[in-house]
Amino acid sequence: MTPQRVSLITLGVADLDRSRDFYGALGWKPVPTPPTVVFYQLDGMVLGLFGLEALAEDQGRPGVALKTGALTLAQNFADRDAVDAAFKAAVDVGAEPLKKPTEVFWGGYSGQYADPDGHVWELAHNPFWDIDPDGRITIPDVD
Amino acid sequence: MTPQRVSLITLGVADLDRSRDFYGALGWKPVPTPPTVVFYQLDGMVLGLFGLEALAEDQGRPGVALKTGALTLAQNFADRDAVDAAFKAAVDVGAEPLKKPTEVFWGGYSGQYADPDGHVWELAHNPFWDIDPDGRITIPDVD
Repeated sequence: MTPQRVSLITLGVADLDRSRDFYGALGWKPVPTPPTVVFYQLDGMVLGLFGLEALAEDQGRPGVALKTGALTLAQNFADRDAVDAAFKAAVDVGAEPLKKPTEVFWGGYSGQYADPDGHVWELAHNPFWDIDPDGRITIPDVD
Repeated sequence: MTPQRVSLITLGVADLDRSRDFYGALGWKPVPTPPTVVFYQLDGMVLGLFGLEALAEDQGRPGVALKTGALTLAQNFADRDAVDAAFKAAVDVGAEPLKKPTEVFWGGYSGQYADPDGHVWELAHNPFWDIDPDGRITIPDVD
């Protein structure tokens, strides 16, 4: 069965610098990343900031203007087979497939579907992030 | 500082029965709740389903038609003073206040603000849910 889990929340933002400043002003400390994305290590999960256009493309619908509240809820898995199985399970029960699981530019493997209201779920294997047996994910320290 | 944490994700849905069926078909098991809401216990956090109109009202903007992706990201706190302090901290750095922290109908205490892109955060004290020192929340067993 699909685990009862959220691993990563990605907020689509109009201005990454403005959003980084906002969360920074709340006291949040990002982990080191490329300049196109911001990640915060939470307790066993991660919250990310990503440009609205880049997020739409990542969700498998390039060019779509995302509305306020645009989000991806992600579940991370230990391997690609688990991603495939979870994607199939979701589509089998009526999820709208947006992007079939595939190798993605950042070196992982990911698929995207929409639930009945259009809430987007990403199912991903990320070889660069640690995932413990309970599914809690951790971004490794970068020197 | 505001803790780097997400405690509860609430998805606004057009048809609660349809959404409960969808997540149930994925194998998710809800905890006992009143019929107007559905909650899933995650690992140290909770995901909820709530009607779109009820969610808009809960966010402090009754009558607003929420778009796809409508979500509330919640942070739970051990007491009301902590809610007040976090709400003030957010507004002080530019958050749009949607609903000042106040006693709410379900017996808790909650305020809502929007981040620069309109993503809605709820800051809440819920006397009926356990919160551990790390901020992980647990819905107590109901007999």
